[in-house]
Amino acid sequence: MTMREIVAGLHAELVRYNLVAWTAGNVSGRIPGEDLFVIKPSGVSYDELTPRNMVVCDLDGNLVEGEHSPSSDTAAHAYVYRNMPDVGGVVHTHSTYASAWAARGEAIPCVLTAMADEFGGEIPIGPFALIGDDSIGQGIVETLKGHRSKAVLMRNHGVFSIGKDAKAAVKAAVMCEDVARTVHVARQLGEPLPIPQDDIDRLYDRYQNVYGQRSPR
Amino acid sequence: MTMREIVAGLHAELVRYNLVAWTAGNVSGRIPGEDLFVIKPSGVSYDELTPRNMVVCDLDGNLVEGEHSPSSDTAAHAYVYRNMPDVGGVVHTHSTYASAWAARGEAIPCVLTAMADEFGGEIPIGPFALIGDDSIGQGIVETLKGHRSKAVLMRNHGVFSIGKDAKAAVKAAVMCEDVARTVHVARQLGEPLPIPQDDIDRLYDRYQNVYGQRSPR
Amino acid sequence: MTMREIVAGLHAELVRYNLVAWTAGNVSGRIPGEDLFVIKPSGVSYDELTPRNMVVCDLDGNLVEGEHSPSSDTAAHAYVYRNMPDVGGVVHTHSTYASAWAARGEAIPCVLTAMADEFGGEIPIGPFALIGDDSIGQGIVETLKGHRSKAVLMRNHGVFSIGKDAKAAVKAAVMCEDVARTVHVARQLGEPLPIPQDDIDRLYDRYQNVYGQRSPR
Amino acid sequence: MTMREIVAGLHAELVRYNLVAWTAGNVSGRIPGEDLFVIKPSGVSYDELTPRNMVVCDLDGNLVEGEHSPSSDTAAHAYVYRNMPDVGGVVHTHSTYASAWAARGEAIPCVLTAMADEFGGEIPIGPFALIGDDSIGQGIVETLKGHRSKAVLMRNHGVFSIGKDAKAAVKAAVMCEDVARTVHVARQLGEPLPIPQDDIDRLYDRYQNVYGQRSPR
Repeated sequence: MTMREIVAGLHAELVRYNLVAWTAGNVSGRIPGEDLFVIKPSGVSYDELTPRNMVVCDLDGNLVEGEHSPSSDTAAHAYVYRNMPDVGGVVHTHSTYASAWAARGEAIPCVLTAMADEFGGEIPIGPFALIGDDSIGQGIVETLKGHRSKAVLMRNHGVFSIGKDAKAAVKAAVMCEDVARTVHVARQLGEPLPIPQDDIDRLYDRYQNVYGQRSPR
Repeated sequence: MTMREIVAGLHAELVRYNLVAWTAGNVSGRIPGEDLFVIKPSGVSYDELTPRNMVVCDLDGNLVEGEHSPSSDTAAHAYVYRNMPDVGGVVHTHSTYASAWAARGEAIPCVLTAMADEFGGEIPIGPFALIGDDSIGQGIVETLKGHRSKAVLMRNHGVFSIGKDAKAAVKAAVMCEDVARTVHVARQLGEPLPIPQDDIDRLYDRYQNVYGQRSPR
Repeated sequence: MTMREIVAGLHAELVRYNLVAWTAGNVSGRIPGEDLFVIKPSGVSYDELTPRNMVVCDLDGNLVEGEHSPSSDTAAHAYVYRNMPDVGGVVHTHSTYASAWAARGEAIPCVLTAMADEFGGEIPIGPFALIGDDSIGQGIVETLKGHRSKAVLMRNHGVFSIGKDAKAAVKAAVMCEDVARTVHVARQLGEPLPIPQDDIDRLYDRYQNVYGQRSPR
Repeated sequence: MTMREIVAGLHAELVRYNLVAWTAGNVSGRIPGEDLFVIKPSGVSYDELTPRNMVVCDLDGNLVEGEHSPSSDTAAHAYVYRNMPDVGGVVHTHSTYASAWAARGEAIPCVLTAMADEFGGEIPIGPFALIGDDSIGQGIVETLKGHRSKAVLMRNHGVFSIGKDAKAAVKAAVMCEDVARTVHVARQLGEPLPIPQDDIDRLYDRYQNVYGQRSPR
């Protein structure tokens, strides 16, 4: 599959898991071996996305190929690719529960084993940042560089997630909303029990290593 | 596409985004250059809507064309078209979270960047008004005229949204429920952080101008 | 359409509106001019319902026609048909929000115009009653006879709704869950504003009469 | 149908009832008359599951047949089959509401007649246990052996459910999430009314015996 096909197809997962309303969410994927990435065109509905109408940008976010304008979040994606060379995919959503934690500026505490597996601890809060320059990209990179979590809750905004490729970034976005919702629901009726840091570390190590060695698809 | 096709088709978005139960929600679109609008027929289920069974009304809400009665909310749509000449589309729903804010008579505070983009501030509350005369239409127009928000929460009732055309009004209805839900969820566990008015203004200006110039579909 | 076709088809609405899990919910319809009604077979999944596998019972709940056993709630449906001659349809669900009000034994207050339209006031609580004899049927009839509401929340159990025919009873079940959810959500963050009794009366009269005369489908 | 077909097909129910995100949930079924069970392969998405890519394990959890690795939860399934000879099916999910009760370490109280029918009382909490040895399996068996409930909420983790066959275990997982959600919603606005133990016993006996004798599908 070409990167255009992969990125176009992965948007269907954002729809399937109810992470997006109207056109407010986007996936991008780095083209291996080139300083380019494929991203959603701006303002096109998910039903109308095809490999053909995807757009290609360089790492400064300039349009290189495509008939539509790139997503209005392109500068943030580009900043991440420029500054995190191991990142092969970026996803942005305003998914409900994650954005609600972001609106309060509260990190999601790690009280579920699935969260320890996937995120290795809490999902952190990034700064409040306006669109229009590199502020959002900087906020993402400063928060996620060196952090186990592959997702960041940008204050009063929404989620950015990263991964070794576009599919891994989509998985992180899906899991982020899933745990954001479960921990929210748990907290509505009391305080979730903490998981000791040692156990979080063991779960994370195992999931990233043992589980990873089985190369799950 | 004819206005009948557009309006019939847009009702599917109300269903897709879970804004309506049974037959309780409707879209209308002004016919460009004529003092007429197309609206949903009364009591017909969303599965059975076709361009053919849409009805056409004049700006006093009188049936001009169609075999069915127009939606019982037609008078409110007509009042908006008569009094807001720039409005080309109107949508009414009882979507859950927006209607819950309406039941408490509370405006939705602007604590999300997506809300600043789309609504330019809070989503306001309109008066309590009974169906049967122009009270609902008046309440909508008095609340929205000169307001940035394209949606109003009618007290103890539901949402009316407007737009330059029917699709824009549907987008406003979808985004209204989306932010109503996210801000509700945020408030369930504490107080969302405010966004400074200056930043709201910057986000709104950019979205309406810069983003708009790209003419997103 | 035969009553078997109508009743089989209406179960799809319970699924569409998420009112049922697994096989826990059923629709019945009285056969006009006969002391018989059609009801869902017991334990058959909604995917497998066909006009053919519907069962026919007499007004004592005895199986008259059909290869499967009738729904385990048949005695309650039969009791309603015996004691409320104007009722042509009965629906039973454990829909989430309505059942939550039922678990607390709290009637749903009428704080939405859609609720005034459809139910004419609060949705009342019926008694706690065990399955196995006429207790449930008696509780439904005692609560709904002479009441405007077409739905009753049976304590610690779920919803029974009635209508002039099976489709009207399904509509009442759908609207009951819809308002149960919206009023629940409204109450989570404060107290909904009351609607004056006079206005509730006006809305109810209009919806039942004016709206009804248009014979909506 | 072969056990591979049954187990592959039942995963669609986990998706339909929104019990799973991405690949996080699995069903297994014991092969009658053999010390083997069929289980989901690890990391394969629900869309791609077929009878062919299911895997077969022995009761120690060793792969006996199949091209993929078995689910990372296989050791827990295997422990249950080894120690509960009457169990013919096991299901594991991180369904939202059940996992939220599990995160607080709170059993779900029996305040709904559907819960008395299906679970015969509360749904209990199992211990916190790490993946990697028999701890999870032991926790499940110690909690459910001799208990009426067919589901256990593993602390800070999720749900395991059992049944006489794989379909019954899936039903228990679906009903567990359904009652977890309804009781959660009920508790959000006050205290649900208790059901006397006598009545719980009567409902449970009737559902397991009378209802069971009708052999519902």
